[in-house]
Amino acid sequence: MPPTIGVFDSGFGGLTVLRALIDRLPQARFAFLGDTARLPYGSKSRRTIARYAAQSAQFLVREQGAEFLVIACNTASALALDAIQDAVPVPVLGVIQPGAEAARAASQTGDVLVIATEATVHSHAYLAACQALGLRAIEKACPLLVPLVEEGWTNHPVTAEVIEIYLNELRSEAAQRGFNPDTLVLGCTHYPLLRSLFQQAVRPGARVIDSAESAAQAAVKLVNGRTAAPPAGSSAETQVHCFATDSVEKFERLGSRFLGRPTGNVELVDLGG
Amino acid sequence: MPPTIGVFDSGFGGLTVLRALIDRLPQARFAFLGDTARLPYGSKSRRTIARYAAQSAQFLVREQGAEFLVIACNTASALALDAIQDAVPVPVLGVIQPGAEAARAASQTGDVLVIATEATVHSHAYLAACQALGLRAIEKACPLLVPLVEEGWTNHPVTAEVIEIYLNELRSEAAQRGFNPDTLVLGCTHYPLLRSLFQQAVRPGARVIDSAESAAQAAVKLVNGRTAAPPAGSSAETQVHCFATDSVEKFERLGSRFLGRPTGNVELVDLGG
Repeated sequence: MPPTIGVFDSGFGGLTVLRALIDRLPQARFAFLGDTARLPYGSKSRRTIARYAAQSAQFLVREQGAEFLVIACNTASALALDAIQDAVPVPVLGVIQPGAEAARAASQTGDVLVIATEATVHSHAYLAACQALGLRAIEKACPLLVPLVEEGWTNHPVTAEVIEIYLNELRSEAAQRGFNPDTLVLGCTHYPLLRSLFQQAVRPGARVIDSAESAAQAAVKLVNGRTAAPPAGSSAETQVHCFATDSVEKFERLGSRFLGRPTGNVELVDLGG
Repeated sequence: MPPTIGVFDSGFGGLTVLRALIDRLPQARFAFLGDTARLPYGSKSRRTIARYAAQSAQFLVREQGAEFLVIACNTASALALDAIQDAVPVPVLGVIQPGAEAARAASQTGDVLVIATEATVHSHAYLAACQALGLRAIEKACPLLVPLVEEGWTNHPVTAEVIEIYLNELRSEAAQRGFNPDTLVLGCTHYPLLRSLFQQAVRPGARVIDSAESAAQAAVKLVNGRTAAPPAGSSAETQVHCFATDSVEKFERLGSRFLGRPTGNVELVDLGG
């Protein structure tokens, strides 16, 4: 039996993580939940986020039979990973630790920049994870980037300008503090859609770390370590079921941009919120 | 006894309406609720918005004794005014009808442009209200403007550029359809903070209608028609109590920009969502 992997986000940004997972684990079954009725988590408090995320995790495990859970949401990973792990009896993987480890592997100078939502930055989860690996990090909230991605301005001059403003503010702070950063961590699952703009905006030679890719790699290790190898030559089509707590039409329309293919029929679920 | 007026918004944008109300009804008692744990409503479905708004209205009437309710949220006014009126036994006033009436009074050509959130535009509530008054209207969702206001970029070149892009798209559509608009309706309670940028962006002579101001004027008529005149010379300080369903610190910090003065202590309430 292929493993069932639950993937959770507050919206559809986490579909960038699901996309990376499908590429690496095509035989798995995936259940994705976007808690779209209550998004964005990025501007909410820890208490509220923990409550919402625990309800969502329980849906994926109890109703959808998930044997592993990937929290494909930086905000929920930063503020509620413990609360989620307490709420369900399966292994839970967030995106913060894999992102920090990828930054550690990429950085020559040991100094990294992290951009994320307001709540993720406020939690300092990336700062702590980076420091534990011997890195110095400067974090910055970039609250305009998610709306710009959702407006579809992923390759737009205004978006390039906003990125330039945010990165300049980060560079000023780095210079003031005597940091020499050579790595930029994209600490939000919406940001991979802006990857080409970030590549153009960073200094030559600087590395851009995509926490969605890093989390998918870590999830593959976790899943392969705990399940039997798939039968040789297995080529059944990947099973993906998407669920949302609000407008499935919007999810289907926007989600395909993040997933890189149609989401299929999205089912509406009520978590009682 | 001064009347108690409940004012409701999904966030703190509605504080622009509260501000206009305080100016006009300084003797009233005000209870403002921002349903910040579940904002923004603008990207959610009618069913979800109606449920959230009805719960919020019941809090203001049952717990805070509101005798009138002003729905200082275009999205909730557009999608859930009936659901709110069904949920509480007091008069309920939205922002759409007053905004349309102000546009009717301002427009010479009878053609108006309306900008608002995605959900407000999708509901076509402004279109219907304008048409009922003999106006032709073109609506456009401007999802980047709320995040730009909340980032504090209310007088920023990027915001001016985004406004220019949105208005140019509206003007192209107006030209294609043979409209001659002379009035712009700001159909979101965040937009009054961008009023000076809008004034610079519209054509000379064009009018900018602020639905917060229009709604406050309509509320004054409603309240004065149903309560005894305040005692002459009454000069007691206005009583304002603010409540939020999430982080009161953020509400206090951002809210003062919208209210034009400190919000005072904000109380956290749990609507069970």
